[in-house]
Amino acid sequence: MSAARNPEAGPPGEAGRPRPSRAERRRQTEERILASARREFAERGYERTTIRGVAGAAGVDPALVMQYFGSKDQLFRQAVHVPAGEELPAEPAEFAELLLSILGVKLSGQAATMPLLRSAFTHPEATEAVRASLAAQIAQGARAIPADDPELRSALLVAVLLGVTTGRHLLELDHLRDASPEQITDLLRPAFQALIRGSSEPDA
Amino acid sequence: MSAARNPEAGPPGEAGRPRPSRAERRRQTEERILASARREFAERGYERTTIRGVAGAAGVDPALVMQYFGSKDQLFRQAVHVPAGEELPAEPAEFAELLLSILGVKLSGQAATMPLLRSAFTHPEATEAVRASLAAQIAQGARAIPADDPELRSALLVAVLLGVTTGRHLLELDHLRDASPEQITDLLRPAFQALIRGSSEPDA
Repeated sequence: MSAARNPEAGPPGEAGRPRPSRAERRRQTEERILASARREFAERGYERTTIRGVAGAAGVDPALVMQYFGSKDQLFRQAVHVPAGEELPAEPAEFAELLLSILGVKLSGQAATMPLLRSAFTHPEATEAVRASLAAQIAQGARAIPADDPELRSALLVAVLLGVTTGRHLLELDHLRDASPEQITDLLRPAFQALIRGSSEPDA
Repeated sequence: MSAARNPEAGPPGEAGRPRPSRAERRRQTEERILASARREFAERGYERTTIRGVAGAAGVDPALVMQYFGSKDQLFRQAVHVPAGEELPAEPAEFAELLLSILGVKLSGQAATMPLLRSAFTHPEATEAVRASLAAQIAQGARAIPADDPELRSALLVAVLLGVTTGRHLLELDHLRDASPEQITDLLRPAFQALIRGSSEPDA
């Protein structure tokens, strides 16, 4: 494991390092809230997740979550979408965990994603919108993949997320519909790691 | 590698073994034709695959392929569907290769699968038909998986096939649309093996 980009390497404003800007501190807080939202949505599902619970797990006031994200639905949408232009973890294992946590949220929250997904398969304009959004995610993911063919690997990861979400929520495949998000992400972990690293050997 | 179920363990009718029945010999020939069809469709795509080419690669007369399968379209449909009740390879590596070869065919043949897939997402009756067919495939695949949670693993493999096929043909995701079936199946191989074996360690 490289020590690069460890967000907990020290408190902000430590000796010798410039104190982070207000915008940077806000970004860090938003990231902490989103990480906590992904855990809560994945563990409890969309319905049982509360703004209060997410705020508590992130160590912030619920009012701050509302101020930053507006509503539970908005928070969910942000939690399943990696913001364009955001840097992704450069460590393959960390990148795999981020993808798995996003998948966990998608699996837990049926209501919010299915209408979009269904219309993506039927209305040409919706197909184009989804295609453009996924293309941006693919390009972004590719930059975090150290193996050969990073764009194609990134596209395959997006396709796996798509297939598993569609299979659970839209086609309601047996077992896939009934399993918990954790069971699914646990079984997929070695496959994700293999796709990201370009080898099926664990790197630990 | 276990020696069980090696189809090339010896010529039929060898000393001490009963000569296979006419039905059994026909089944073996059909299997050889389907294996050759999967290779041809995956390498050449649907349009450029010919009954003559498939027959040549399987070492049989083109008329026999027509007699058994009726048309190129029927042959394609058989090649992408594992017949219900058929025994799958008990070796994880062989099972992974069979799935990858079926995926290769699905990726190469756009015309034949997309209307079915699109309608599966839009018409409730079609959804139900596709769901039932995939449920049978999931149950069958589970019997070939030696790891824990075989049904859920099998459902995940089906979901990956679904996602990659949909991503290429229906959403036309960048890179996924332009890659060759071989490039895609090569990158997915370690992920499939990890899902089937329940570990990301190669077994060789």
